[in-house]
Amino acid sequence: MLHNNLSINEKGNLAISGFDTVELANKYGTPLYVLDTDYVLNSCLKYKNLIEKYFGEGSKPLFASKALSCMEIYRIAKKAGIGIDVVSGGEIYTANKAGFPMENAYFHGNNKTDADIKFALDSGVGCFVVDNLDELAALQKETSARGVTVRAMLRVSPGIDPHTHKAVVTGSVDSKFGVAIETGQAMETVKALLACDNIQFEGLHCHIGSQIFDYNPFAEAADIMIRFIADVKKETGVTVSALNLGGGFGVKYTDEDADFDYEKVLSDIASSLEKACADCGVSRPRIYFEPGRSMVAAAGLTLYTVGSFKTITGYKSYVSIDGGLPDNPRYALYQSKYTCLIANKAGEEKTIRATVAGRCCESGDLIQEDVALQPCKRGDVLAVLVTGAYNYSMASNYNRLPRPAMVGVGEEGDRIIIRRESYDDIVKNDI
Amino acid sequence: MLHNNLSINEKGNLAISGFDTVELANKYGTPLYVLDTDYVLNSCLKYKNLIEKYFGEGSKPLFASKALSCMEIYRIAKKAGIGIDVVSGGEIYTANKAGFPMENAYFHGNNKTDADIKFALDSGVGCFVVDNLDELAALQKETSARGVTVRAMLRVSPGIDPHTHKAVVTGSVDSKFGVAIETGQAMETVKALLACDNIQFEGLHCHIGSQIFDYNPFAEAADIMIRFIADVKKETGVTVSALNLGGGFGVKYTDEDADFDYEKVLSDIASSLEKACADCGVSRPRIYFEPGRSMVAAAGLTLYTVGSFKTITGYKSYVSIDGGLPDNPRYALYQSKYTCLIANKAGEEKTIRATVAGRCCESGDLIQEDVALQPCKRGDVLAVLVTGAYNYSMASNYNRLPRPAMVGVGEEGDRIIIRRESYDDIVKNDI
Repeated sequence: MLHNNLSINEKGNLAISGFDTVELANKYGTPLYVLDTDYVLNSCLKYKNLIEKYFGEGSKPLFASKALSCMEIYRIAKKAGIGIDVVSGGEIYTANKAGFPMENAYFHGNNKTDADIKFALDSGVGCFVVDNLDELAALQKETSARGVTVRAMLRVSPGIDPHTHKAVVTGSVDSKFGVAIETGQAMETVKALLACDNIQFEGLHCHIGSQIFDYNPFAEAADIMIRFIADVKKETGVTVSALNLGGGFGVKYTDEDADFDYEKVLSDIASSLEKACADCGVSRPRIYFEPGRSMVAAAGLTLYTVGSFKTITGYKSYVSIDGGLPDNPRYALYQSKYTCLIANKAGEEKTIRATVAGRCCESGDLIQEDVALQPCKRGDVLAVLVTGAYNYSMASNYNRLPRPAMVGVGEEGDRIIIRRESYDDIVKNDI
Repeated sequence: MLHNNLSINEKGNLAISGFDTVELANKYGTPLYVLDTDYVLNSCLKYKNLIEKYFGEGSKPLFASKALSCMEIYRIAKKAGIGIDVVSGGEIYTANKAGFPMENAYFHGNNKTDADIKFALDSGVGCFVVDNLDELAALQKETSARGVTVRAMLRVSPGIDPHTHKAVVTGSVDSKFGVAIETGQAMETVKALLACDNIQFEGLHCHIGSQIFDYNPFAEAADIMIRFIADVKKETGVTVSALNLGGGFGVKYTDEDADFDYEKVLSDIASSLEKACADCGVSRPRIYFEPGRSMVAAAGLTLYTVGSFKTITGYKSYVSIDGGLPDNPRYALYQSKYTCLIANKAGEEKTIRATVAGRCCESGDLIQEDVALQPCKRGDVLAVLVTGAYNYSMASNYNRLPRPAMVGVGEEGDRIIIRRESYDDIVKNDI
C-alpha cells in the first residue's frame, strides 16, 4: 500500500500498524484521527541517525511542532532525543507540560509578542530564532531587564524558489519571514544581533518551502547560506557554527506522488554542502533540519462514517461523511490530494468514482473530488490516508463540530492520546 | 465610514457603536473580536419586520448560525423573536443552553448522523431540513421508534448560478446539498417524505449562494421553486405552504463593494414571487429567509497588536500582527477582501501600502495583501473591519494559538461574551 505501516487484514479491513481500523472506529467512534506512534518514533530516530551520519556531531533534527502539536508528540521527541521547533506560547506550554527538555526547543515565528518572549524565557526555551530587528530589540530589552543571556539564531531569506529549482529571488526574498541576504538586511541584522549583550549568536536559519522531493533546492540554499557565512566571517570576524536548513521534505499522499529516499537526499545535500564549504573556505557548521510533515504525516489516517451516498443523475456521486473541513481543511485551503478508501471494504476493488464531501454547511467543504472508491453506503467507514500532519493541528470547530479524538496505535497498544471534544468543551468559554 | 456603527472619536481612535477600540484593546488584550450586539439585534428586527411586511404573516427570518454561533447570539435571536438555522449537535446544544425556544430551530446539513437525529429530537428541534433519501429513512426510523412526529422541509437544488444571474443548471444541480428538480430526484424525495407516517411536511428549502447583491438570483430561484410547487400540487395534490429561499445577502467589506438596500431587494423579490404565483395559479406560501453573514458581519471587527513593520528594500512592506489565519482564515481560503486600519491613528491618512501578515508559521497566513494603511510600528493597534461572520465560527488553534476573546458592545456596555482561550484550554484534552 501507500506506506509500509498500512495493510489489509484477513477480514478485508484496512489496518494501520496491524490495528484493524474498523475495530478502532467501532471502539472509539468517528470521526477519529489514528496515529501510528511507532512510525513517529522511528521517523525521529531515522532522521537523527542520518543527520548525524552525514552532517557530523551536533547536527540534529528539530521536529516542526506546527505539523502536529500535542503532549504525546513531545514525549516521543524526548524519547528519541531530538530537538523541537515551537512557534507559540501554546506549543511551548504543551511541550513543557509533557516534560520535554526545553533547552532543546527553538522558538520560531515572524511575530513573537512581548508576552511570548517573557513566557518563553520563563519556560526555559533554549534558543530564539529571531525574525527581524523589531523582535531583536524586544528580546534584548527583556533579557537585559532580567540579566540573562539566551541563544539566538537569525532567520534569513536565501531567495530560493523550491518549485522551479533555481534561485528566483522574487520568490522568497518577498516573504513575511526573516531578513533577506540580497537586500543587505540579513547582514545588517546579524551585526545588530552580535552587538546585543544578552544574546548569544548560535547561527543562521532558512526555510525554503514544503513538499520538496529533490535535494537540489536544499543544495542551492546551502550554497547561498555558506557564501553568506563566508561574508559574515569577512565582515564581522565571527564564525557561524550552526546552520538550520529548515524543513520541507516531501511526503507521498497518493500513488501519483514520487517515493522519497531520505538517505539519498540527505547524503546529496551533505555532498553539496561540503563542496560549498570547500569553495568558500568555510568549515562545515553543525546542520539542523526541521522535518514536520515528513515525520508524522504518514503515521496518521482519519476514519469517518459514511452518511449518504448520492448520485445526481447525469452528473456525479457524492459520499457525505461525518467530518470534513473542520478536521481537515487542506483540500479547501490548498486543493491537497489525498487517498481515500472504504476501510471495511479495503480488499475490494475501487470500481466507482465519487466526491467525498464533508458535513459542513459550505459548498467548499470537500475532502477530495472525483476519487476512486469502493462502492459504499450509510454506515460504512471511510478512511483518508496520510493525515498525521496539518489535520489535527489546523482543526477548527466550524459549525460547532467537536474536534475528533486521536487514538495512538503501536507497541503500547491502542489508546486515546487526545480526547474527543464534548459539546461542553465547545461552549465552555461562552458567557 | 464603511458602516454606520463605525466612527472616529475625538482622540482620533476608531470607535464601534461609540466604544473606543483602543481602550477595548488595552482593557481586554489582543487579538480581540468585538461585536456590536445592538447592531445584531437591530439587524434581526429589521429582517423580521421587512419579511413580514413584504411576504405576509408567518414569513420569517432564520438566523444562519454557522456565521456566528455562541450563546449570546441565540439570546439576541430569542429577544428579536426570530428563528434559527442550526447545522450540528454543537449548534443545537449552544442554542438550547442559551434558552432559545427550540421549536423555532431548523436543522440543516447534508449529513445528519444517527446520533445527531437523536440529539435533535431530544433537544426539541422544531423542524428538520431533510437533505436526501438516506437521511429521510434514518429520520423516519428514529421518529417511528419513538412514536413521535416531526416537521420537515426538503432541501431542493433549483439549478441557479447566482454569479451569472441566469439558470445555469450545471452550477448548483451538481452539489453536495439536497436533491435536484431537474433530475426528477426532488419530486421523488417529496413523494417519499409525504409517505412517511412520522414526518409532517412543512415545505421546501433552497439556497443559491452567498454575497449576492441583487434580487435577480432570488427572483429566479423563487420562480423555479413556485413552478415546482405547482408540479407538486399536480402530482401529489399537496399544497406546499412554506418556502425557504435561504440566505446569501451581500455585505460591504470594502469601499469597492456595492451598498445593499435590503428593503428594495426584499420588495423586489416579493414582486417577482407574486408574479410567479399568479402565473402558476399557486397561492403564496409563507417565505423564510436565512440571513447569517448580513446579520452579523458588519457588527464585528477584530483588533490586533502590531508586532513588526518590515520593509523589504525594493520589494514591499509587511505588518505582522498577533493573530491571523487561526482567527480569520477567510483570506487563506477565499482571498476575501477586508478593510484594515490602524485604530489608534484612525484619523490620520493612509499613506502607505502594506501586506498584513498573521503570526503563523505559514506563508499563506495573510489577512490582506497590499492594502492602504496608516504608517505603523510595534505596539500599534490594527483593526480589521466587518469580521462578525465566519471569523470566530471558523477559528482554529493552528500553531496552538488560543482563540481570541469576544467582547460585546452596545446598550449593555462592554462585556466579555466569549472568554479568551487559555493554554490550559488548549491542552485539556491531551493525554
